[in-house]
Amino acid sequence: MAIKVLLNEDEIPRQWYNIAADLPSPMLPPLGPDGKPISPDMLAPVFPMNLIEQEVSQERWIDIPEEILEILYRWRPSPLHRAKFLEEALGTPAKIYYKNESVSPAGSHKTNTSVAQAWYNKQFGIEKITTETGAGQWGSALSFACALLGLECKIFMVRISFDQKPFRKVMMQVWDGNCVASPSRETNAGREILEKFPDTPGSLGIAISEAIEQAVTDESGKTRYSLGSVLNHVLLHQTIIGLEAKKQLDKIGEKKVDVVIGCAGGGSNFAGLSFPFVLDKINGAEIDVIPVEPYSCPTMTKGPFAYDHGDVAKMTPLLPMFSLGHDFIPPPIHAGGLRYHGMAPLVSQLAVEGLITPRAIHQLECYEAAVMFARTEGIICAPETSHAIAAAIQEAKKAKEEGEEKVILFNLSGHGLMDLQGYSSFFDGKLKDYELPQEEIDRALKAIEGLPVPEISKTGKW
Amino acid sequence: MAIKVLLNEDEIPRQWYNIAADLPSPMLPPLGPDGKPISPDMLAPVFPMNLIEQEVSQERWIDIPEEILEILYRWRPSPLHRAKFLEEALGTPAKIYYKNESVSPAGSHKTNTSVAQAWYNKQFGIEKITTETGAGQWGSALSFACALLGLECKIFMVRISFDQKPFRKVMMQVWDGNCVASPSRETNAGREILEKFPDTPGSLGIAISEAIEQAVTDESGKTRYSLGSVLNHVLLHQTIIGLEAKKQLDKIGEKKVDVVIGCAGGGSNFAGLSFPFVLDKINGAEIDVIPVEPYSCPTMTKGPFAYDHGDVAKMTPLLPMFSLGHDFIPPPIHAGGLRYHGMAPLVSQLAVEGLITPRAIHQLECYEAAVMFARTEGIICAPETSHAIAAAIQEAKKAKEEGEEKVILFNLSGHGLMDLQGYSSFFDGKLKDYELPQEEIDRALKAIEGLPVPEISKTGKW
Repeated sequence: MAIKVLLNEDEIPRQWYNIAADLPSPMLPPLGPDGKPISPDMLAPVFPMNLIEQEVSQERWIDIPEEILEILYRWRPSPLHRAKFLEEALGTPAKIYYKNESVSPAGSHKTNTSVAQAWYNKQFGIEKITTETGAGQWGSALSFACALLGLECKIFMVRISFDQKPFRKVMMQVWDGNCVASPSRETNAGREILEKFPDTPGSLGIAISEAIEQAVTDESGKTRYSLGSVLNHVLLHQTIIGLEAKKQLDKIGEKKVDVVIGCAGGGSNFAGLSFPFVLDKINGAEIDVIPVEPYSCPTMTKGPFAYDHGDVAKMTPLLPMFSLGHDFIPPPIHAGGLRYHGMAPLVSQLAVEGLITPRAIHQLECYEAAVMFARTEGIICAPETSHAIAAAIQEAKKAKEEGEEKVILFNLSGHGLMDLQGYSSFFDGKLKDYELPQEEIDRALKAIEGLPVPEISKTGKW
Repeated sequence: MAIKVLLNEDEIPRQWYNIAADLPSPMLPPLGPDGKPISPDMLAPVFPMNLIEQEVSQERWIDIPEEILEILYRWRPSPLHRAKFLEEALGTPAKIYYKNESVSPAGSHKTNTSVAQAWYNKQFGIEKITTETGAGQWGSALSFACALLGLECKIFMVRISFDQKPFRKVMMQVWDGNCVASPSRETNAGREILEKFPDTPGSLGIAISEAIEQAVTDESGKTRYSLGSVLNHVLLHQTIIGLEAKKQLDKIGEKKVDVVIGCAGGGSNFAGLSFPFVLDKINGAEIDVIPVEPYSCPTMTKGPFAYDHGDVAKMTPLLPMFSLGHDFIPPPIHAGGLRYHGMAPLVSQLAVEGLITPRAIHQLECYEAAVMFARTEGIICAPETSHAIAAAIQEAKKAKEEGEEKVILFNLSGHGLMDLQGYSSFFDGKLKDYELPQEEIDRALKAIEGLPVPEISKTGKW
């Protein structure tokens, strides 16, 4: 049969891979409000020091603590599947593999880092973690991790999602997560907004401000903030995905992968699968590595590499990344997890170096791909994940045209059982593709005017 | 670590176990409307002959066709987990294991039989399968199987569920299942009801009538009907669960299981896990085998062993089973899959023989168990499954009191991500336990008055 490849308990990777050690040119540092590089201790009120150390680490391999492995082992190593039935439906000579992260109890790859972050916080003596969530995927994953490790978890959920997706809140509640609509009356940031705009639908920017405020103002010093993507240590924790995939391909004698694909919002699931393969590429292998973003939020395909804030409220340091400007509000596509103006600095840097090749795909093509996948491979994927599937299908069709037996690998980052509204709208013909006029992008990019500009962006060489 | 036991590809069971071959006394036959045993060919318009042969087979072991295994292998063998963190929370000396059927793409054990049934129908030249669904679990599983095997699937979904749970319908739609609210205008049965009661919320009984009518009246002869529980061949397909569990326990040197538990509505997930262990019991092993039903639908704990119809509309043959009467309407608990008036004849017969010991548990205790399980083991279970967890916790506490290191095994039959409304009501304090007065049971049992009575029920020995 061989359509699924498992790893045994003793084959689970015991180290994460830190690509910061292998970048052709050094990473640019994050900058403070004064334009100067920020030091690790400036982040100490926000994150525990052990995670800050990971954030700035240049070590290539970082040991995964045994206690984290014990939790991950409940659903990891995740299966690697051969998409034989999709291949047959496409009539392609290509071999398509996918790494199935949907088997996590919270339904996506997010638990790989939520468990690690909760564990490091606990090690550092932290008792409560705050975070924000948009569609609810990250809030669920962090609640799950905090429940298993006995930490308190507070989630500020963008009000419009809180109201539209009541079951995400229930999911967090089952895992003892305390989820409130943002803006809330619990923080200064929230109260100020509510006074001015009592009926605001909220935004991720406001929710981040609330979560950070609640962490840094806790006088006990036992509260920290947690982020589900973008940052170096988050991407690091996800590399277990790609490391497992390499072992699994090895196990079935698949020596060479030609194309590696992941959808990219903040960048973490893409990074998790692809970074170990990018290492091979740095060492000379020929691999196409493709982060896929929505056509309507084309951070890497249309945005510049710039210094920008991670959030609307400009609470975060300036990060060196592709960005459409921190004010950019993407059209209302259903892949909420990909509606982010920026991109992880590590992923951004790989694009600048030419090691990865970003691609943008329209929403309707992605839903068509998701439905085809469900009807051949049997799994209903998340709207975000459908972008990776659509790109894999594009590559498989190209292989057919060119008569090449390529090996394609993509990340099935999550299932879509909590996001069936999007499928419903798709079947009802209510979804459309959004063109994004250049003027609109130019307008959004005004937000980064006056901010420091990375040297490499001035040369325009990339 | 050893908190999860996997099987390799070559260890997947290649035969189902048919307990009909090992019953201490022979099965009673189903009866027709005339009170006489019905013959296999009388079922031919409803089911394909290859499944009817399985229904009446006395062979102990039945080969699983390779093509069915190839599909099951996408998520099977399912993991066996040690519930170490639940054990710690309970402070019990007992070892608790659970078989994780929630990893199926449709979220429950139901796909084990939907795939097999769809495959046998296809082998027999059938092109379309009709069925009914209440909460939607079975309709989803059958749509999934039909999508993968290229069959048409038509689902009549009880109108009130159709309206209350729109996402179940979308799930079926993603798998190309055609789900309509029942009563519908597509059948005589449906139209008749709608004329009399245009605003009816529908019932499982009506939906069954519509599904059977559409199957038997298709003039092409290419349509058959499918049932998701109760029948012998359905239970047979589920035995892969228990056969895998035995191999997994063997693999870690766990020689003796003391208690085997499954929730029981129609009986199929309970049967699937327990029948291979009941065989050991028949051969002399000491094992407590416990089907768990809701206190508010106490089919086996309060109902008689009788001949009764499987549906309200009396379309099905008379089955020898525990029943509360085919008119019985249980209180509105959230475990919709357990709100069934009858019980699979094979499960019923084992109870009559004293080989299994039914237990009833109240709804609130089940939700408490489910929440404890989610916060220790990490998985949000289906409301039905919570009954098995509650019984496992009862047994683990008993082992603690008695200071015995018992080995407890239960079936985690499905996840609850599509059923979070019940958890929400539980947290909001809106759920209650329902006592079921004896008079109400007596009233419902009037429906079986005048029907044939099994000899053994007259003796009152069981």
